Amino acid sequence: MTCEKRLLELWRRAKRLLDERLSEVVERLPETEAIDVARYIVAGGKRLRGFTTLLVAEGLGGSWEDAVEAAVAVELVHSASLAIDDVIDGDVTRRGGPAAWLKFGPGRAVMVANLLISYAQKMLLERYGFRAVERSVIAWFDISRGEVRDAYMEEGGEYTEIVRLKTGSLFRLAAELGAVAARAPQSVMRRIGEYGELMGIAYQLADDVVDYLRGERGASISRLLAWLGYPHDVLSTVIAKLREILATIDGIVRDMVAGTFAPLLSSLPRFVVKAMFSEAGVSRLVL
Amino acid sequence: MTCEKRLLELWRRAKRLLDERLSEVVERLPETEAIDVARYIVAGGKRLRGFTTLLVAEGLGGSWEDAVEAAVAVELVHSASLAIDDVIDGDVTRRGGPAAWLKFGPGRAVMVANLLISYAQKMLLERYGFRAVERSVIAWFDISRGEVRDAYMEEGGEYTEIVRLKTGSLFRLAAELGAVAARAPQSVMRRIGEYGELMGIAYQLADDVVDYLRGERGASISRLLAWLGYPHDVLSTVIAKLREILATIDGIVRDMVAGTFAPLLSSLPRFVVKAMFSEAGVSRLVL
Repeated sequence: MTCEKRLLELWRRAKRLLDERLSEVVERLPETEAIDVARYIVAGGKRLRGFTTLLVAEGLGGSWEDAVEAAVAVELVHSASLAIDDVIDGDVTRRGGPAAWLKFGPGRAVMVANLLISYAQKMLLERYGFRAVERSVIAWFDISRGEVRDAYMEEGGEYTEIVRLKTGSLFRLAAELGAVAARAPQSVMRRIGEYGELMGIAYQLADDVVDYLRGERGASISRLLAWLGYPHDVLSTVIAKLREILATIDGIVRDMVAGTFAPLLSSLPRFVVKAMFSEAGVSRLVL
Repeated sequence: MTCEKRLLELWRRAKRLLDERLSEVVERLPETEAIDVARYIVAGGKRLRGFTTLLVAEGLGGSWEDAVEAAVAVELVHSASLAIDDVIDGDVTRRGGPAAWLKFGPGRAVMVANLLISYAQKMLLERYGFRAVERSVIAWFDISRGEVRDAYMEEGGEYTEIVRLKTGSLFRLAAELGAVAARAPQSVMRRIGEYGELMGIAYQLADDVVDYLRGERGASISRLLAWLGYPHDVLSTVIAKLREILATIDGIVRDMVAGTFAPLLSSLPRFVVKAMFSEAGVSRLVL
């Protein structure tokens, strides 16, 4: 079986597992009044960040069962951040339906999203201890910083820095928590964190170029174009950048992971970027 | 000098110190675009929670300098929570001026408040390590839970539980962090946490009875009246409850703190409740 086919199969399995565990966590919320909103906020994601946590844990000698609560925590934070972002940006659709704030009001959306984020933090604390909480505190500070920069900076050459804060930091956390769940040493966790961050940057780059191709022209597109140097052919230029990033990631994996799992971790970032493109209807790209 | 006079003097000093340090922290934010909003969000508080952290630290053998970053973190979280609450509840005034969301828009208010909360968490992590982060994660989960219950539950006998989650947990954290800063043993931290929680409950009770006296009749007033058993004279009934709580607190302090500092820690809850009453123009109450 090719790596890509194997990843697709694993991802489907991971998605089922994460959907199931996320539901269980939400239904167990002590604030039963908030369960409807919480269920809506967590529904419908691709679970690529949680999948990253599971695969990294397995690649470093742990099991999915070791890592599943970390993966669930990452997906909780991701879903909750999107719900808050939509309030901040006034976006009306999310994951193919109306944004949570449109259905339940901005107050309830923000309130339940904040509940989910602190719930995720508590899960990490209780299940994995200091290292997991430390990484998540740093990641959440970076995510908040990225959000502020993204919303406030109108133009400017900061494209990669904003993307690193906004998307790179959560993929970094996803990978780091996989290492924590597998009880990997600190040096391995740091290196796999870089792997995750680069994957996040590649993912966001794909996301932004899709927006560009659809005709969007907001501040982040301006930043993207400025960073690329206003090329004639934006898509080809982005694909060249993506190939560069993916080659760097390959180098990290080769350095780090031995055995039969290395090809899967090496293929994962490519898989994640393609999942982004194919969700947007842009397929048949050779990366 | 009476205890009360001494506390007033210490509180003025603490307020100056905390105002100064909060300003420094805000001006150092790496997201310079957010500084205006952040400055507005943190301005104008009584700093009673941060004062609690400083006094507890000193009472347990530490110094204000050991504890000041913890006190600042508690005040950052408190101010940020208020800014988010105002968005959720649609409240238009705060600390004698327009709410942050009215001045800067709800999106920016929520975004910068979340930035301040994660910044506070990172300060605690870097300065005090695991114990401080652990306590704050648990407190922030409880605060989020309290907010959801407060906003969703229309009536019901849950008054003390909601108050414990909503206000008790942050005062508890304020006291616990004072113990952490003074490197007190775990058992002392737990006991001083109970002291803080009871102080928070007394504070909220005072806050709610002031709202009642002003003619407000929202869900939390209904819960308060139900809990009190719909008495003829609400103020006297609340004062009797406050006296009970303050007596329990006295017992905890007598058990725990020896030496010249005990009377100050014993008077602090009374001082905090009176500061609440006197800010609301209700003075000359004998507690």
